[in-house]
Amino acid sequence: MHPGMVVVLQSTTYPGTTREVLLPKLGAEQGLRVGEDWFLAFSPERVDPGREDWTTANTPKVIGGITEACGEVATIWYAGAIKTVYPVSSAEAAEMAKLLENTFRMINIGLVNELAMMCERLGVDVWEVIDAAATKPFGFMKFTPGPGLGGHCIPIDPLYLSWKMKSFNYNARFIELASEINTNMPRYVVSRVMEALNERGKALKGSRVLILGAAYKPDIDDVRESPALDVIGLLQKKGALVEYHDPYIPHIHHETDGWQMDSINDVMESVKNADAVVIITDHKVYDYRAIVDSAKFVFDSRNATRPFAKDHENVVRL
Amino acid sequence: MHPGMVVVLQSTTYPGTTREVLLPKLGAEQGLRVGEDWFLAFSPERVDPGREDWTTANTPKVIGGITEACGEVATIWYAGAIKTVYPVSSAEAAEMAKLLENTFRMINIGLVNELAMMCERLGVDVWEVIDAAATKPFGFMKFTPGPGLGGHCIPIDPLYLSWKMKSFNYNARFIELASEINTNMPRYVVSRVMEALNERGKALKGSRVLILGAAYKPDIDDVRESPALDVIGLLQKKGALVEYHDPYIPHIHHETDGWQMDSINDVMESVKNADAVVIITDHKVYDYRAIVDSAKFVFDSRNATRPFAKDHENVVRL
Repeated sequence: MHPGMVVVLQSTTYPGTTREVLLPKLGAEQGLRVGEDWFLAFSPERVDPGREDWTTANTPKVIGGITEACGEVATIWYAGAIKTVYPVSSAEAAEMAKLLENTFRMINIGLVNELAMMCERLGVDVWEVIDAAATKPFGFMKFTPGPGLGGHCIPIDPLYLSWKMKSFNYNARFIELASEINTNMPRYVVSRVMEALNERGKALKGSRVLILGAAYKPDIDDVRESPALDVIGLLQKKGALVEYHDPYIPHIHHETDGWQMDSINDVMESVKNADAVVIITDHKVYDYRAIVDSAKFVFDSRNATRPFAKDHENVVRL
Repeated sequence: MHPGMVVVLQSTTYPGTTREVLLPKLGAEQGLRVGEDWFLAFSPERVDPGREDWTTANTPKVIGGITEACGEVATIWYAGAIKTVYPVSSAEAAEMAKLLENTFRMINIGLVNELAMMCERLGVDVWEVIDAAATKPFGFMKFTPGPGLGGHCIPIDPLYLSWKMKSFNYNARFIELASEINTNMPRYVVSRVMEALNERGKALKGSRVLILGAAYKPDIDDVRESPALDVIGLLQKKGALVEYHDPYIPHIHHETDGWQMDSINDVMESVKNADAVVIITDHKVYDYRAIVDSAKFVFDSRNATRPFAKDHENVVRL
């Protein structure tokens, strides 16, 4: 630590981290006074990977200092690089704002995932329902169901808050529920695949299953926390012969579960040979019509086959 | 029922109502064939009371028929009066779309209500946190906490879906949780008022409490399901001497709980005399600065006092 230094934590974390963890660790050494000799603030990252309309430079930046002076110094510092800075009264307020943003997403994805499960029982097309609701021009925001949460933010960050609240004897119920529902989605997808194969007189055990897409969202090469990992693992445990293809992820090494796999080379060849093709990530590069035309059976967890799913008896959507 | 008649249900209801309840009831009498001799569809209302930018005429209208012909006839019929019609494949899809819209609101209000309770334990200003999160220009929608849900839609409609799902042995967990949290908010508000009075050395029992605003949202005269009713009832049960003022609601008659009350006449006189003023509805007509300046103590469940709350030790916000 040098006198005059400005330290800003940007990683999402539980409320209180900046003050309770960073401040004593960084400031203790030389006896420097925070807010006078050095400055400490929290200012969350707000990047949506792959997005081009909102970047670091034009996305408003929330900044909260450990002291008023810390907030002021950090705000001046950021104002040089970022179009809109938004100071709040404390590091904790900034920490909580970021947690709210991610919790909002996690919960709303949990809601539509539960909606998908309800619609299945009701015999209603969940994708049609969501698109219809999304025509409401106010008071609604569209989220879509899927095989589970992925990436290193949305599935994990809200659990920091949930963990912190336990020390206040408070059970963060929405976070716990959304986590439970979202974490269960790979299992739900596998059970739907097994049911659909069963209807076709086939056991999942011994069936050839091709997973299309392993990244946690389309058109990126990030497999962190991807539901594809869970789906592959669960299918294997039930005795399916699993292959996967992802143009952006040539190899998966799942250390904790102890398996690895290479992306297959010839997609269409594998599509033809598979007993079930399971779309996990709706990469744009795939020719979904050709896939649906060639496959014996497709389970589509992303509604990628929408335009032609209705004419094909071999397609089942989430 | 006359031949050629078009019947459209617009009230929000559980999925299946149009087909399972209306169809047999209306069609059975004369043996008319639905989709040929008469037409039945569901097309939900989408009115936000008090709103002027989006009206019935310019808000897209979702329409789902009992048969394809029913949907087509109803769509043609509405297209004469409404700018955008949005046909879906069934009455059930239209029913579910409306339930999703209202469930989305109920759940997100539940989330920020829970956030308010968490922020209180963490010592963070929930309103500041929400405003900071709302500076995110994508992927976030702002909802605000409050003393509980009101009106005849948001608190009730999602429970139709929850009820229906029970017949499928499915527990609609998000709806149940949001309902539990939102329904508890009046109780939470009363406990916060009691705590704040206690800190000032006063018992709630025997204290004069003035409720400001009884309508379920600002600047309207609708008291249906308003949390003010619950807050008043709970305060009375704990022995408070409760008065209320609402410029739009001169009289409340709570039939099920067996009490009635008139709105007081002189707001500022009552504000001065009250041991606690509790803001339940943030009607625009109130002079919040004058109220805060005159009151012994204000509990603000709507952040109506924001601009001057920080300078006043006698204001506690949700």
